[in-house]
Amino acid sequence: MTFKHKIFNLVDENNKGSLPNRAFNLFIVFLILLNVAAIVLESFSRIKSTYSQEFYFFEIFSVVIFTIEYLLRVYTADFKYPGKTKIGSIGTFLSSPLAIIDLLAILPTYLPLIIPIDLRFIRILRLLRITRLFKINRYSNSLKLIGEVFKDKRSDLGVTIFITFILLVIASTLMYYIEGQVQPDKFPNIIASFWWAVATLTTVGYGDVYPITGLGQFISGIIALLGIGLVALPTGILSSAFIEKINSKKKADVEKCPTCGKDL
Amino acid sequence: MTFKHKIFNLVDENNKGSLPNRAFNLFIVFLILLNVAAIVLESFSRIKSTYSQEFYFFEIFSVVIFTIEYLLRVYTADFKYPGKTKIGSIGTFLSSPLAIIDLLAILPTYLPLIIPIDLRFIRILRLLRITRLFKINRYSNSLKLIGEVFKDKRSDLGVTIFITFILLVIASTLMYYIEGQVQPDKFPNIIASFWWAVATLTTVGYGDVYPITGLGQFISGIIALLGIGLVALPTGILSSAFIEKINSKKKADVEKCPTCGKDL
Amino acid sequence: MTFKHKIFNLVDENNKGSLPNRAFNLFIVFLILLNVAAIVLESFSRIKSTYSQEFYFFEIFSVVIFTIEYLLRVYTADFKYPGKTKIGSIGTFLSSPLAIIDLLAILPTYLPLIIPIDLRFIRILRLLRITRLFKINRYSNSLKLIGEVFKDKRSDLGVTIFITFILLVIASTLMYYIEGQVQPDKFPNIIASFWWAVATLTTVGYGDVYPITGLGQFISGIIALLGIGLVALPTGILSSAFIEKINSKKKADVEKCPTCGKDL
Amino acid sequence: MTFKHKIFNLVDENNKGSLPNRAFNLFIVFLILLNVAAIVLESFSRIKSTYSQEFYFFEIFSVVIFTIEYLLRVYTADFKYPGKTKIGSIGTFLSSPLAIIDLLAILPTYLPLIIPIDLRFIRILRLLRITRLFKINRYSNSLKLIGEVFKDKRSDLGVTIFITFILLVIASTLMYYIEGQVQPDKFPNIIASFWWAVATLTTVGYGDVYPITGLGQFISGIIALLGIGLVALPTGILSSAFIEKINSKKKADVEKCPTCGKDL
Repeated sequence: MTFKHKIFNLVDENNKGSLPNRAFNLFIVFLILLNVAAIVLESFSRIKSTYSQEFYFFEIFSVVIFTIEYLLRVYTADFKYPGKTKIGSIGTFLSSPLAIIDLLAILPTYLPLIIPIDLRFIRILRLLRITRLFKINRYSNSLKLIGEVFKDKRSDLGVTIFITFILLVIASTLMYYIEGQVQPDKFPNIIASFWWAVATLTTVGYGDVYPITGLGQFISGIIALLGIGLVALPTGILSSAFIEKINSKKKADVEKCPTCGKDL
Repeated sequence: MTFKHKIFNLVDENNKGSLPNRAFNLFIVFLILLNVAAIVLESFSRIKSTYSQEFYFFEIFSVVIFTIEYLLRVYTADFKYPGKTKIGSIGTFLSSPLAIIDLLAILPTYLPLIIPIDLRFIRILRLLRITRLFKINRYSNSLKLIGEVFKDKRSDLGVTIFITFILLVIASTLMYYIEGQVQPDKFPNIIASFWWAVATLTTVGYGDVYPITGLGQFISGIIALLGIGLVALPTGILSSAFIEKINSKKKADVEKCPTCGKDL
Repeated sequence: MTFKHKIFNLVDENNKGSLPNRAFNLFIVFLILLNVAAIVLESFSRIKSTYSQEFYFFEIFSVVIFTIEYLLRVYTADFKYPGKTKIGSIGTFLSSPLAIIDLLAILPTYLPLIIPIDLRFIRILRLLRITRLFKINRYSNSLKLIGEVFKDKRSDLGVTIFITFILLVIASTLMYYIEGQVQPDKFPNIIASFWWAVATLTTVGYGDVYPITGLGQFISGIIALLGIGLVALPTGILSSAFIEKINSKKKADVEKCPTCGKDL
Repeated sequence: MTFKHKIFNLVDENNKGSLPNRAFNLFIVFLILLNVAAIVLESFSRIKSTYSQEFYFFEIFSVVIFTIEYLLRVYTADFKYPGKTKIGSIGTFLSSPLAIIDLLAILPTYLPLIIPIDLRFIRILRLLRITRLFKINRYSNSLKLIGEVFKDKRSDLGVTIFITFILLVIASTLMYYIEGQVQPDKFPNIIASFWWAVATLTTVGYGDVYPITGLGQFISGIIALLGIGLVALPTGILSSAFIEKINSKKKADVEKCPTCGKDL
């Protein structure tokens, strides 16, 4: 096994076998979790002002590790996509969603070195690395199942979202014309009214905006009741998809007729 | 192909083949979306006062286009409903839900020409055209499935709505008698109490009205818990309908007995 | 057909055929709806003070009609329960849930004639008659299906309610000890805390009571997330019950083997 | 039957047959319910100050009974786990979840006798005994079914919780950076922001914290809509699990071919 192959076996996420690989992945997961913890702690102004240097060093340290990992993946991309040319495999890797997330997670820390501006906000892109946690092998089967269910039903779920959107537009326009006259501060325009519509249709109901006219309350009630249908629709779609998956899996376990021995 | 047939192929919504037809439908969809955007932007008082003339011209322009489209559809109605007489096909078209929506969308702009009153409110009926977006071919299968599911279960869902209504009436009457004594401003009558009942049963809970007496809170809790059943009932109905649809589709793919070759 | 038989055919709710019977049932339904409307209108203090006499006469009129209907049902009870003796059939009728509701609906209006007290509150028991609307033939199949689903799964749903109750008790006790120290006015005792627990678990969240301590918010979050499971559990139970019902119905349509002609 | 065997038959929870055993279990359930009632009543400061001694005596009485029950179970553990040695069976019993709960329920009352501090808070651990109510035979089948459903799908449900958690982390970090600038008192740090995220994703929406900036409201709307997916996902999983259970149960009722008499 060449050195490059060894590197690939170390950093590859799908290589379940070897101990060093598992240790490496565990280390990366641990570092990601520490970064999440750091971002959370940094948000406490008192903690941040006391340990600002420690946070800064930890960020540099993490990003350097993440950068090395990213470069090693680029270097071994031809092992990951064996059927492609060297350049082709690197291109495929660079444009994969996870690689883009990884790049977005490390870039903001390097940017101030080039452009002299403080990009505090986009530095939290480091957080995106949390999605890497989905790669943990433990859950991979369930995650795959859920992913397939959403993929199978993406068209039905898309229609649900579409219906929801049209409902929100109609409701918020109506509400602007009805309540905007009485509560111009709460419903000053249709965009503000849209906020009420979302909060009502999803049954969140913060209580910062609500209708006070009779007609407004009537429409609000209709929207809230439709919100229940909005929950029922995707749930029904997903339920049927899960059942379909289970049944087709069982079918795949071919059954033979016990009498004549032929496939049923 | 006659000129009239060409016109029909251009404006027909179900004609998936030709390029001009697809371009025409795309243009109409685009114009509808621009109208929605215009209605939303017009609701910002500052934008409206600055660009009031532009909005007005855009409305006239859109409505003229929509009117021409409507008239062309009337003109080619006998192609759409081939089995009917000229008059019969126009009558069928005019009384179809989408044609009524289209008429409602254009009429309010013409009305002020006849009656000298400002009908600002009903001019937003243009928004109804948004329902036309459902005609986009991409989603038509999923939309048809969801439509059939609701149609198959309209009786079961009707009973759910009926139970909900009776529950709301009983809850709001009770609450008026219990809380109306202590909070006469929040529960002044049963209609106002109904507003609380809807907000509670749908679990929106804005927080503008809530019980403060022990008995009122007890009933409110019961209603909120029943609200969970209210979500569970239609969801269960829709789930079973989706599964039924999938199974009956599979059955339709006739299976033959592998041994004797006959249909099972 | 005897006079008594004719009366029975008139007032019986399950006799779908005859015109007079359908007219009679429609009249009763109409009267019930008018009574609901009257109760709602009476709750507006201004309307009540203006038309108090009209409301009183309408109540007397309705209750007299309901009383006559009730007595006619008692009179013809032996036709409804043919296998029983005269006394037995009356007893069975009097103890049926719908007869008890009907009695509760008429009694409060007669009571002041006997006891000289004003029982304004219990007079709204007339509202109970609204449950009679469930008897409308249109919905009877769907209503029967929903009823059977709840009956089949009453044990599973009972456990769900039981789990909910235990969760509420534990959550509200914890919250009383945690938040009661900081917000003694909002969480003065466990019963008050229970009100918060119900509003949170059902995701109503009025916003009149909410935790402000870190630990309180943590527990509140857990309860709210469990609240989602609380929705998922009965929904899953009801979904499976609806599917079971549909499948067992299909099975009942006996299928024969197309080759040998025997039942499968 | 030895005296020890008689004791075992008395205190064993799975022994459905004998009358004394059922009476004993009923007495324990009754005592648990009384303890719950006592804890609730004690939370009313006026009731507590008036009857503080009665509550104290009742607690001592209950805990003594619970202690005796606990010791009898330890004593007869070798009957409960027949295949093990005396020591092994006691160890198995002591480490069973219900035994740990029972120990936690009685310990806090004894602690002040050893350590001279007032542990008022942990004394409510007595409440944990409420979980014992799940042992009531009536519900055992349904409870077992629900337990199995959760066990079968623990991996899928785990992924749902995992997705929820990652969603909450990302949403609350974003919201801290967006709303923290405008409402530093409501979103002072990411942990406080997490509280908002939970209340929104679960659609509780107390209304104590909500976004006021346009971008914040936009993200809040997205989270609320995703919250609906969060309900749909576990519901779909549980629905399919319930259906699977019912189907596999039916399969277990072996069907024979009506023609040749052999098992299918």
